[in-house]
Amino acid sequence: MFKRILYGGDYNPEQWPKETWGEDLEIFKDAHINSATVNVFSWARLQPSENEYCFDELDSIVEKLSKEGYDIVLATSTAALPAWLFKTYPEVARVDHEGRKHKFGQRHNACPNSPVYQGYAQKLVSKLAERYNNSSHVVCWHINNEYGGECFCENCEKAFRVWLKEKYKTLDVLNEAWNTAFWGHTLYAWDEIVLPNTLSEEISAEGIGSEGIGARQTCFQGISLDYKRFNSDSLLANFKMERDIIKSWDSQTPVTTNLMGTYKPLDYFKWAKEMDIVSWDNYPAYNTPWSMVAMTHDLMRGLKNQPFMLMEQTPSQQNWQPYNSLKKPGQMRAQSYQTLAHGGDTIQFFQLKRSKGACEKFHGAVIEHVGHKDTRVFREVAELGKELEGLTEIIGSQNISEVGLLFDWDNYWALESTSGPNQDLKYVSQIHQYYRYFYEKNISVDLLPVDADFMSYKVIVAPVLYMMKPGMKEALEAFVLNGGRLVTTFMSGIVDQSDNVHLGGYPGPLRELAGVWVEEIDALGPEQKNRFQFENGGEGETTLLSDVIHLEDATSLAHYTNNFYAGMPVVTQNTFGRGQTYYVGAELDRSSLGIVLDQVCESATVVSSIDEATSLEIMKRTIDDTDYYFIINFEDEEVPLPKTFDGTVDLLTGKTLSSSERLLKYTTYVAKM
Amino acid sequence: MFKRILYGGDYNPEQWPKETWGEDLEIFKDAHINSATVNVFSWARLQPSENEYCFDELDSIVEKLSKEGYDIVLATSTAALPAWLFKTYPEVARVDHEGRKHKFGQRHNACPNSPVYQGYAQKLVSKLAERYNNSSHVVCWHINNEYGGECFCENCEKAFRVWLKEKYKTLDVLNEAWNTAFWGHTLYAWDEIVLPNTLSEEISAEGIGSEGIGARQTCFQGISLDYKRFNSDSLLANFKMERDIIKSWDSQTPVTTNLMGTYKPLDYFKWAKEMDIVSWDNYPAYNTPWSMVAMTHDLMRGLKNQPFMLMEQTPSQQNWQPYNSLKKPGQMRAQSYQTLAHGGDTIQFFQLKRSKGACEKFHGAVIEHVGHKDTRVFREVAELGKELEGLTEIIGSQNISEVGLLFDWDNYWALESTSGPNQDLKYVSQIHQYYRYFYEKNISVDLLPVDADFMSYKVIVAPVLYMMKPGMKEALEAFVLNGGRLVTTFMSGIVDQSDNVHLGGYPGPLRELAGVWVEEIDALGPEQKNRFQFENGGEGETTLLSDVIHLEDATSLAHYTNNFYAGMPVVTQNTFGRGQTYYVGAELDRSSLGIVLDQVCESATVVSSIDEATSLEIMKRTIDDTDYYFIINFEDEEVPLPKTFDGTVDLLTGKTLSSSERLLKYTTYVAKM
Amino acid sequence: MFKRILYGGDYNPEQWPKETWGEDLEIFKDAHINSATVNVFSWARLQPSENEYCFDELDSIVEKLSKEGYDIVLATSTAALPAWLFKTYPEVARVDHEGRKHKFGQRHNACPNSPVYQGYAQKLVSKLAERYNNSSHVVCWHINNEYGGECFCENCEKAFRVWLKEKYKTLDVLNEAWNTAFWGHTLYAWDEIVLPNTLSEEISAEGIGSEGIGARQTCFQGISLDYKRFNSDSLLANFKMERDIIKSWDSQTPVTTNLMGTYKPLDYFKWAKEMDIVSWDNYPAYNTPWSMVAMTHDLMRGLKNQPFMLMEQTPSQQNWQPYNSLKKPGQMRAQSYQTLAHGGDTIQFFQLKRSKGACEKFHGAVIEHVGHKDTRVFREVAELGKELEGLTEIIGSQNISEVGLLFDWDNYWALESTSGPNQDLKYVSQIHQYYRYFYEKNISVDLLPVDADFMSYKVIVAPVLYMMKPGMKEALEAFVLNGGRLVTTFMSGIVDQSDNVHLGGYPGPLRELAGVWVEEIDALGPEQKNRFQFENGGEGETTLLSDVIHLEDATSLAHYTNNFYAGMPVVTQNTFGRGQTYYVGAELDRSSLGIVLDQVCESATVVSSIDEATSLEIMKRTIDDTDYYFIINFEDEEVPLPKTFDGTVDLLTGKTLSSSERLLKYTTYVAKM
Repeated sequence: MFKRILYGGDYNPEQWPKETWGEDLEIFKDAHINSATVNVFSWARLQPSENEYCFDELDSIVEKLSKEGYDIVLATSTAALPAWLFKTYPEVARVDHEGRKHKFGQRHNACPNSPVYQGYAQKLVSKLAERYNNSSHVVCWHINNEYGGECFCENCEKAFRVWLKEKYKTLDVLNEAWNTAFWGHTLYAWDEIVLPNTLSEEISAEGIGSEGIGARQTCFQGISLDYKRFNSDSLLANFKMERDIIKSWDSQTPVTTNLMGTYKPLDYFKWAKEMDIVSWDNYPAYNTPWSMVAMTHDLMRGLKNQPFMLMEQTPSQQNWQPYNSLKKPGQMRAQSYQTLAHGGDTIQFFQLKRSKGACEKFHGAVIEHVGHKDTRVFREVAELGKELEGLTEIIGSQNISEVGLLFDWDNYWALESTSGPNQDLKYVSQIHQYYRYFYEKNISVDLLPVDADFMSYKVIVAPVLYMMKPGMKEALEAFVLNGGRLVTTFMSGIVDQSDNVHLGGYPGPLRELAGVWVEEIDALGPEQKNRFQFENGGEGETTLLSDVIHLEDATSLAHYTNNFYAGMPVVTQNTFGRGQTYYVGAELDRSSLGIVLDQVCESATVVSSIDEATSLEIMKRTIDDTDYYFIINFEDEEVPLPKTFDGTVDLLTGKTLSSSERLLKYTTYVAKM
Repeated sequence: MFKRILYGGDYNPEQWPKETWGEDLEIFKDAHINSATVNVFSWARLQPSENEYCFDELDSIVEKLSKEGYDIVLATSTAALPAWLFKTYPEVARVDHEGRKHKFGQRHNACPNSPVYQGYAQKLVSKLAERYNNSSHVVCWHINNEYGGECFCENCEKAFRVWLKEKYKTLDVLNEAWNTAFWGHTLYAWDEIVLPNTLSEEISAEGIGSEGIGARQTCFQGISLDYKRFNSDSLLANFKMERDIIKSWDSQTPVTTNLMGTYKPLDYFKWAKEMDIVSWDNYPAYNTPWSMVAMTHDLMRGLKNQPFMLMEQTPSQQNWQPYNSLKKPGQMRAQSYQTLAHGGDTIQFFQLKRSKGACEKFHGAVIEHVGHKDTRVFREVAELGKELEGLTEIIGSQNISEVGLLFDWDNYWALESTSGPNQDLKYVSQIHQYYRYFYEKNISVDLLPVDADFMSYKVIVAPVLYMMKPGMKEALEAFVLNGGRLVTTFMSGIVDQSDNVHLGGYPGPLRELAGVWVEEIDALGPEQKNRFQFENGGEGETTLLSDVIHLEDATSLAHYTNNFYAGMPVVTQNTFGRGQTYYVGAELDRSSLGIVLDQVCESATVVSSIDEATSLEIMKRTIDDTDYYFIINFEDEEVPLPKTFDGTVDLLTGKTLSSSERLLKYTTYVAKM
Repeated sequence: MFKRILYGGDYNPEQWPKETWGEDLEIFKDAHINSATVNVFSWARLQPSENEYCFDELDSIVEKLSKEGYDIVLATSTAALPAWLFKTYPEVARVDHEGRKHKFGQRHNACPNSPVYQGYAQKLVSKLAERYNNSSHVVCWHINNEYGGECFCENCEKAFRVWLKEKYKTLDVLNEAWNTAFWGHTLYAWDEIVLPNTLSEEISAEGIGSEGIGARQTCFQGISLDYKRFNSDSLLANFKMERDIIKSWDSQTPVTTNLMGTYKPLDYFKWAKEMDIVSWDNYPAYNTPWSMVAMTHDLMRGLKNQPFMLMEQTPSQQNWQPYNSLKKPGQMRAQSYQTLAHGGDTIQFFQLKRSKGACEKFHGAVIEHVGHKDTRVFREVAELGKELEGLTEIIGSQNISEVGLLFDWDNYWALESTSGPNQDLKYVSQIHQYYRYFYEKNISVDLLPVDADFMSYKVIVAPVLYMMKPGMKEALEAFVLNGGRLVTTFMSGIVDQSDNVHLGGYPGPLRELAGVWVEEIDALGPEQKNRFQFENGGEGETTLLSDVIHLEDATSLAHYTNNFYAGMPVVTQNTFGRGQTYYVGAELDRSSLGIVLDQVCESATVVSSIDEATSLEIMKRTIDDTDYYFIINFEDEEVPLPKTFDGTVDLLTGKTLSSSERLLKYTTYVAKM
């Protein structure tokens, strides 16, 4: 996609006197920065009033950057509306979940279904595309910024009805999908539909009995799911609107927008289809597990099954988390190589220069408030920049996985929208428990949508596959029939695309495949545990939920040793065609889950990226016949280099590697083999 | 009231294809189900638009159930309004505590003072009553569903002023009652009164100093109390409106609505007077103490001092609690017999068939999602059903108690509305501390309103009798004069019916009766404890609040050994006429409270249901000269059967009981003696 | 200011029958009460309707009190508006932070920028001033009550724009100050400015990424700071409006309003300039450290650098805190003398008589609900009253300090408004950590505004001096040049008056003075600690934040022993001119901070109030050549009297003091030397 590894990030010269720009660019150059993302939040500067546009400043910026040979990622500035737009057309502001109309302030707050917003955004983007489409230095269009949030205004309500009409055609079908016969919610006219928020379907403590349940749940999952889909689609329509304008002027340059990992409100698999390249913003907290960061990279790569851009990371610290720790020496470097290891083709920072005021002034930057280069942060940025210049060859290389892990926004939404059985059940956390196993074994994993082609994988892991949509049963069965290993868990196969239960016994469409019938689902309080025993010895504990399982065709791998279901299976294995399905009927303790997945991997002949066990992270990217091994120590302790790499040369430093070396924390090598 | 123990529950055939109804009924029959509650949420089906009614579906349901011999509990469907009603008449929606007007969504959300809502509800109920009044299979009318919640709309504001005018006649009287001279809130016109909510009298952190206090308290307890009374009355007026229509068509069939135990917003003692029979919904959480469940049953029985209907319980699990554990094998049976033991005359489930979608799909049912009978839950339901057929003789039998425990919604509201002295003081928890003692001793307790006839009791227990309304002093004094034992506690006798203090020294109207003057009330932080010593030896600890007590006529049973009130009494006893008053001036540790209540019981010659101490729950119901002993083990350990029952026959199984048996958890017998 | 120590407090006869007033006054007299604060909440009584005023009741009260020789503190009653005013003019009600228009209810809720409120308040105060200005018994005017809170209505929005225009003159200047170039918030017209609240600039979880940050922060600190200043000014304008009316009738009698210690929303240093005397309400919680109470007294004294009135304290307990413990015997006395010790010249209670209803009925009073004098509380009040009659000579005596501690509302607001680096960083807590050291050493401290004259101090302590406004650099440098010791800490010198960073390296304007450059600021999670070693031995720990410090001219007093900045300084000392600056680059554990401050005090020759170390609180007030030593034991243990006081006479009891005495908790002496 790009000729070099873009190394740069958000740059906001409009916040600084023009005289300082030259010095900035010189400093960037010393850091081997080759790219800048500009015009992210300049609408108010570009259009000071309704009928006035002014591109002088942006022209200067683009010209200056171009002259100095920077690759420009050009944003469209539509993520923050000018104050005058809110004043003149209050409709552009969102109405929030509690029904409150907002005013000018913040960002990311335009009603996606406001014709006024759409109109002015179109105008602006047309002018930008017209003006800059022929700049050879613009290597990427960056639309808007971190799309997100929800709106509950009247325009959205009307648009929702249109969206529903298109989807369901008749109210009968809609009533069936939402199961409105429950609680007498049958709808007889489209305009009886109201948006599901605090003022309508949201469950309050008073609404459903004397004890409260988790916030943000509604009485009708069907409407809530459709609203989430609609909202994601509405924002996506905003993206497509801008993209199409740009494409009409410039069909070559790739178009992206920056995503946010496992951000819940947007169905990124659907979004990625409309994007030329995925880009995302990586902001782990000081205590986020590295396996979670890795998983999120893999998810972002999985969106298009292609390398991605790292549009934002901080060179040092964030400002908006509760505890904004510094990245330790070497950490930013290690984290950047982790990004590349998992499919990143760019390393971009938020931000190149720290703003002096407003809410992000404590967010780290390449140029800190001190204003010069003599900082630890700058030195680390510069060293990395230099190294990356030597890594151009990895651009476009692939991550090849034998294991696919399903991730699905519909499931995410549905699982966390449903009422019962256990409020502590969280989607991403469940997915991560499975991912972590493979991560620790250095087994590459693709994060897949539920409609992916499973056939190229040896193992498909589908934790809490709560919602089984049309076609999924057939695809999964074909996969296993054909020799694949499927791992699935409790709370799988329960509902259809509208959150209506697949009747006839859990796990519904997975029942034959898993060879089990789940008669009941027990919920454990936070202080409760169940115990179990593996059939071939060893004991474990379960938490959260416990399926009460009857074997049909499956065999038991482990059974409960307490509770009324003592003796009944907790983990099962079922041969189906040439493959096998493993059903994990409870949240297992970490070590027990490892035992189960060891068995899966063994039977599927899934192997690690190298033959040796190690607590280093080792990921491989491949291009043609060349493998690039990314070796990183994220452990607090020193870890010896695996023998595999004895005698190979580190691409970054040119040094010959030896298994006699013990890697310190954050030490990173790239071995080409 | 009923010829057999109604065994059934909520059935919503309108959620399912008509073809499936027959199969459902057959399955129910196998479970010995003899009753179904229908039409709870069908308004939108019965009246698809403003001028259109359609009873075909309901006719079919009633006809089908009747033909198969089911007793029908016929609901009125007014608890969930059709969407079109909200669209056409937005006034039917409530305004919430924060002043937000709601829209269509959820249920239980009609403004009770909306003339439009009232008008359409009347019409619907009239049509239902006209249509089904002569069905011999309708054995009970079930009005609306789980009345509850509050409304703060303009209609309610106007109605509140009318209600107040009727109560107080003049503003002078109202100003006096609300003590509006405080903070200059004197009212000079009725329309100056606004509803007490977040927008008006609610205390916020800013409102009263730099530290916040518990939410939902207002500056004027008088207006808050009156609003709570008004709101309870408003909903009760809705109930009475429907009841009167039904009675005008059918004066014979009992009319009820399902209550919710200790639900705070409604004064159920006042409600019960308007109901032919009390029914209620029993949903303990996985960690609710069994003594709390028992107490709530006794409260529901106490509302009319008559047997009650158990309108809802789940056969397996709930969906709306944080952790919805399964009922363990035998638990549902034990819990059902506990219900009967405490005065239940029916056992009804929510629900007979699990819905496939919307927020209650994870709520247990007789027919689970699997759709057949071969489930643990079904088998337990069927076994119980069979047993209950043999228990018809207990219908109408009485629970006879020598101990009365006062429960009063005015006190509940007032105690938790007042500002100070300790935010952790909760009404139901205090009542339960006393109830638990008797429960563990197997001493039957009646939960009484404050205007009950005390004379038939040996002991009246009145914890935190904060509000003493007119007549209570005289009634309690007469009771003790006449030889009764009164037990009361700290935070008693403090205020009158408007939450104005009884001046002249705490405990106000109880001062002579208790023979003590409470000079001060100390509040303890959550980490603090006081210590005390019984006069006849033994030590204990107190928490929460500590009265500083001066003996007047009373004698001390125990005195503090720390704090500045060391040496002063913490528990006192006062002879008054032929009886005695015990005053417990602090929250005692459990074992110390037991010592005090042991002494009360001994002096009052109150005895347990059997002569032996046991950790089994043993409750007795009596009809004529026959006693039915309900024997249940709710302990985790095995418990031996008391010798009392040696040789008696278990009514459920026909087996002869022996004290050599150790009962497992949930084992239940009914011994007729 | 006053001829005697005012001893009395809030008295609300309007809440009681007129017949009882005489008895009240007799009881007060027995308690040596000589003053009453009246008319605090009587607007509705004084003006029952728009065109009707009635002063009869107040006339009687004033007359009665005057006849009995009470000094009257006469309030203006404008803190609680009559109900009719809200009904007729809804604009007088505030709009809250969430944008909700309020109604009649509570108090302290008038929109400060409502012309209607202002107009009616003016009228009322004019009438009061006209009527009572010549009463010789009115010794103090008490305007309104506990000013506080915020309003976000349209009137305030308009007034805010006017306030901004006056401050900034042009939008260019304002745009620069708020750094609106960030996120494209450039403003092109004054009416584009909206108030910063939940509906506009407030940061929500959705607004700024996938993780939330602390509530009540906005994206633009500049607008939030200006709003806070504006709001404080708006309420102050209300105060000044009333004051000016009173002064026009009565230029002699001092005018005050009661403040609330470290109450965040109001810049009390600015307020104090407009007040003749500071008065404040002292309500520590049961677990507030005594050092915090002392610090708050010193702050209140520091506002005008003059003795102050204690306008409110409770004789026994509060009602509005979570746990309203009783004051133990002697505690109220000790606490009152602590007040005098720190500069109080009056002791006034809220309240003289407990109200019988509404939210403060559980707030302690001189006359309790029992209505007579025979209570512990009354006896303690009476004893203290008698003692105070003998202490008239201390009125106006000074507290003389060698140590100044900076406290600044702009810093308070800015530090807690900023986004990052650690959400647990709280202003008052940081100030208190430093104050506590001096308190425990019995070293007198003045709480100073940032524009104070530092020259009379030996040590200036400026913790978290985050915002350095114009002139501060010069003043602090002059102070140190001249031989002073400055102690400052991490998060100092970072931003200017608009929360824009002082570029060029932290700690900005303090860099030369401190002789250090802070390259980075690390944030620690709540479970994390850093370790360090003093250069001359001894180890310690740090929490919260850790500066990464480079020595420039300074020398290191202690260095980190872990983390990547191991070996780098954590505490430094810099000689600057004839003085020295100590920079404390992290939150030190208590004992380590003591070691640092010991060194500061030693080098500055700052001494304790007496030569001996003691855990007693010992504060000195001085008048001419006479010193009054206030000696109080706030410890749970007995503490020996220091030898210093051997042979001196306690002014309160006349007893001769001896170091052989061990003081019990709350024992208090006043030694004149």
